[in-house]
Amino acid sequence: MSKNLFKGIISYPITPFLTGDGGVDIKTLEQLIDRLIQDGSHAIAPLGSTGESAYLNDEEWNAVAEASVKQVAKRVPTVVGISDLTTQNAVRRAKFAEKVGADAVMVLPISYWKLTEREIFQHYATISEAISIPVMLYNNPATSGLDLSPELIVRIIKEIDNVTMVKESSGDIQRMHRITQLSNAEIPFYNGSNPLALEAFAAGAVGWCTAAPNLIPAWPLRLYEASLAGDLKQAREVFYKQLPLLQFILKGGLPTTIKAGLQLRGFDAGVPRKPLLPLDSAGQNELAALIKQLDG
Amino acid sequence: MSKNLFKGIISYPITPFLTGDGGVDIKTLEQLIDRLIQDGSHAIAPLGSTGESAYLNDEEWNAVAEASVKQVAKRVPTVVGISDLTTQNAVRRAKFAEKVGADAVMVLPISYWKLTEREIFQHYATISEAISIPVMLYNNPATSGLDLSPELIVRIIKEIDNVTMVKESSGDIQRMHRITQLSNAEIPFYNGSNPLALEAFAAGAVGWCTAAPNLIPAWPLRLYEASLAGDLKQAREVFYKQLPLLQFILKGGLPTTIKAGLQLRGFDAGVPRKPLLPLDSAGQNELAALIKQLDG
Amino acid sequence: MSKNLFKGIISYPITPFLTGDGGVDIKTLEQLIDRLIQDGSHAIAPLGSTGESAYLNDEEWNAVAEASVKQVAKRVPTVVGISDLTTQNAVRRAKFAEKVGADAVMVLPISYWKLTEREIFQHYATISEAISIPVMLYNNPATSGLDLSPELIVRIIKEIDNVTMVKESSGDIQRMHRITQLSNAEIPFYNGSNPLALEAFAAGAVGWCTAAPNLIPAWPLRLYEASLAGDLKQAREVFYKQLPLLQFILKGGLPTTIKAGLQLRGFDAGVPRKPLLPLDSAGQNELAALIKQLDG
Amino acid sequence: MSKNLFKGIISYPITPFLTGDGGVDIKTLEQLIDRLIQDGSHAIAPLGSTGESAYLNDEEWNAVAEASVKQVAKRVPTVVGISDLTTQNAVRRAKFAEKVGADAVMVLPISYWKLTEREIFQHYATISEAISIPVMLYNNPATSGLDLSPELIVRIIKEIDNVTMVKESSGDIQRMHRITQLSNAEIPFYNGSNPLALEAFAAGAVGWCTAAPNLIPAWPLRLYEASLAGDLKQAREVFYKQLPLLQFILKGGLPTTIKAGLQLRGFDAGVPRKPLLPLDSAGQNELAALIKQLDG
Repeated sequence: MSKNLFKGIISYPITPFLTGDGGVDIKTLEQLIDRLIQDGSHAIAPLGSTGESAYLNDEEWNAVAEASVKQVAKRVPTVVGISDLTTQNAVRRAKFAEKVGADAVMVLPISYWKLTEREIFQHYATISEAISIPVMLYNNPATSGLDLSPELIVRIIKEIDNVTMVKESSGDIQRMHRITQLSNAEIPFYNGSNPLALEAFAAGAVGWCTAAPNLIPAWPLRLYEASLAGDLKQAREVFYKQLPLLQFILKGGLPTTIKAGLQLRGFDAGVPRKPLLPLDSAGQNELAALIKQLDG
Repeated sequence: MSKNLFKGIISYPITPFLTGDGGVDIKTLEQLIDRLIQDGSHAIAPLGSTGESAYLNDEEWNAVAEASVKQVAKRVPTVVGISDLTTQNAVRRAKFAEKVGADAVMVLPISYWKLTEREIFQHYATISEAISIPVMLYNNPATSGLDLSPELIVRIIKEIDNVTMVKESSGDIQRMHRITQLSNAEIPFYNGSNPLALEAFAAGAVGWCTAAPNLIPAWPLRLYEASLAGDLKQAREVFYKQLPLLQFILKGGLPTTIKAGLQLRGFDAGVPRKPLLPLDSAGQNELAALIKQLDG
Repeated sequence: MSKNLFKGIISYPITPFLTGDGGVDIKTLEQLIDRLIQDGSHAIAPLGSTGESAYLNDEEWNAVAEASVKQVAKRVPTVVGISDLTTQNAVRRAKFAEKVGADAVMVLPISYWKLTEREIFQHYATISEAISIPVMLYNNPATSGLDLSPELIVRIIKEIDNVTMVKESSGDIQRMHRITQLSNAEIPFYNGSNPLALEAFAAGAVGWCTAAPNLIPAWPLRLYEASLAGDLKQAREVFYKQLPLLQFILKGGLPTTIKAGLQLRGFDAGVPRKPLLPLDSAGQNELAALIKQLDG
Repeated sequence: MSKNLFKGIISYPITPFLTGDGGVDIKTLEQLIDRLIQDGSHAIAPLGSTGESAYLNDEEWNAVAEASVKQVAKRVPTVVGISDLTTQNAVRRAKFAEKVGADAVMVLPISYWKLTEREIFQHYATISEAISIPVMLYNNPATSGLDLSPELIVRIIKEIDNVTMVKESSGDIQRMHRITQLSNAEIPFYNGSNPLALEAFAAGAVGWCTAAPNLIPAWPLRLYEASLAGDLKQAREVFYKQLPLLQFILKGGLPTTIKAGLQLRGFDAGVPRKPLLPLDSAGQNELAALIKQLDG
């Protein structure tokens, strides 16, 4: 399978919850996935941070994984997020994702107790051995509590067969430089930090994993296309236009702000799961203004 | 109920797992709880960080909570740890703990997405309303990913009835000063940072929550007693003697090092759950030497 | 005077010291300035961090300022660095720089005691009132111990007449975004962090202040030219080629590594002033290899 | 010479400046030193951070050093602060301090460029060789920009003859633990962080270097005496009483707040040197209230 299975704009759908009992709203999820694909996303990444996978029980997680892959239906590739606290359950979920047809899994080694490099390596090795689809290593210290150095990332990718690509969400451009240097530019890297999108493409990222297409699908595509064409001035221009919205959704928490934005777009996807609270009305007004500016 | 329900040495039992299938080993847990009480612990705190509660499923968690409270059998007070990602499951666990007879719960608001102060407050309020036993607020940014300021902590305790005490594990003595100042020394605070034990007592902590009694029960008691007597020289002396071991168990991760130490003590409590790995042999040798120095 | 007085590659000459008594070696400094201009630098910035201005007494500082401006002789613009601990001496130096013909001064408010925003603002206002040439605000927390927020930077530039541009050396690309946003892209910003050169140009920097031209003058020019032309692929390619050397000179300290590199280039500019020590032989070998790769 | 030359409360006089021309006001300095000794300080430390030594030129520095030592007149020991950017000037000042009769020097290796451990070691070695009086190593990352690890501190003290004691101002109690452990409690350490005074004595500090005696001389003495007597309850009580003032003077910058406080005490010692500004009127009111509470 090609290393470059994924490129361009890789979109995270949020996970909608039903009101009242609060279970997963599969029907709305399917509609959202259709929207993202119709709007041009190059790949779909369910059950990421934006998808509130941390707040789902196993049954809910399975339902979302299965429905997502089925709904995408190979129109674009699907990469399913795996971020369990135990290796055992991470393996279980990875195997389930493979079984239902995911093209890849994106593995974030989260911590309660800080993990040593040996423990992180072993976690990836165990998951990787259990499946045949590629693994995208995912580093996101702000949510996971673990920070994988570029040296460790490159070693894992070189030494474990199925781990073939990396999503870097630390927001530190020097990590991308270092990964490029350590791998002679042979490891495809993806950017997961919205406000770094321009510079990550400048530094050679092959894709941008983002929740922004839920709200403003055309803008991330424009940035990607300008970058792909090597047109720096156009890339800069479209980046600065969408930057205020990217900053807003990051600062407010992606499930919170994306769900509020979908409501503003007339697409009811409910609210995030507690302890997360819905965006307050001041935030809704600010978000509405930011969206309007980009629609204008 | 008295605010000073808890004082002195509050011990965390580890959670033993069976080999093979890896389920919880309740029988060994019961023996460990007996040891801790016989060795002089003033309270028992199951399902804390040391108890690997983050790595248990709901059924296992229930079994440990019920067995722990039953085995303690009111010989000393029991405080059960609650650290769920969703408010809903935190409430469920808190109610279960109350039902099986816990004297209090210790609530750590862990994060995937960073929580706002409003979300943290609401999390505590919701749990507190659901139960009648006291809540110990717990701040531990290194494991939970959330750092509650002294101002927020004091506000929660003042405004939410059942929340009556705080365990501070940031390791920053200035937080304890600040809590004391903001509450006119009326909020009982407990120290959860092992290498800060001497100074926390100096600053007025009423208790020390620690896993050290699993391995060296007499030493934390000696520090507490000297502090209680106001004997600074004796407190300093017994603190520096046990400090190397306290530093070691913190640095190596408590489940990892305490389980290795119990093995060295001839008490087989198994190994931690993956991705955590057992202590390597160099670490075991170092730990054995540290224990021997304190036994001598 | 145009806001865009400076653009492109703004080079820092080191300050050479005589052996033995260790006074300033003005003759060698003049030769170095000639080299930098002949090699294509768009501006010269004496008495910056690289110029060890922190280690010069007033007399030496005056001598370097005067000789530098005289030697540049308006072939390109000159911006003289001002980084005194007292406002009084900063004013004295700024006036001296203006008197001897500098085109601008670059003011870094260094701290012993942390300064409040009011103190920083007043420092800039006092210096600015004392001279008529433009002031480049300079933020470099790693050396100065003070970190000016984008909000403060933009306020100073908007409210104090002579302060018209900013050099950002924090290495954080988000600061450049923020300055651009807060000023509607009207404040020219310069990058002072070598490993951020590609991304700073991508984000819209009008110049790059760097010591690299002392050793590899063609490479920074190539990056600037590709960026100016909007050719992202070429910019990326020439950036990654020079990145290892940029990382090396930053990590080893600029006076230390640039003086060692000049020696390797056959240009004897002495060694840095103590407590700084000359580059050790392992470092010299590594630097020689990095230079050779770029010359090849 | 005894290692325990210094113990107890080591007071920093501020450096008063004349109004108008702003030169050093030696006469007022002499009066202040008398006050500090009469009020019970166990040692005097001129030209520290509080003494604004960073903002003095060489001539002023010499005048303050000479006048201070002469005025103390061996009633108590004197330790003169040395914090120059160049080794050469640090040596010159250390020799001057010895010549005019200082009992010791306190050396803070400040940085513009970050120094390597080799450079820091060499800086201490060069100064130490040039004089015969003891050197107190001083670590204060917040003002100096350099952070010396306990390992480096202990190595310097073990390997360089004249360096015999350490003042730790990082505010991190774990550093004091580590120095004690690495030296078998044989290196005398002094605390330079005001809000850590209680815990530093608990951990074994032999002295507290502080500017507080300029304003509230009785209170630091009470804390020291209770700690020396091993009376933890009394130590805690007197510490919490003075803590709000200690926090205030630290937060506002010592020269700024101590000079304002002296004014409130009816002792006119002028204002700090620019860029430092005098305490504003809200701050003055707050400080007056804090002093009044302790006087009452």
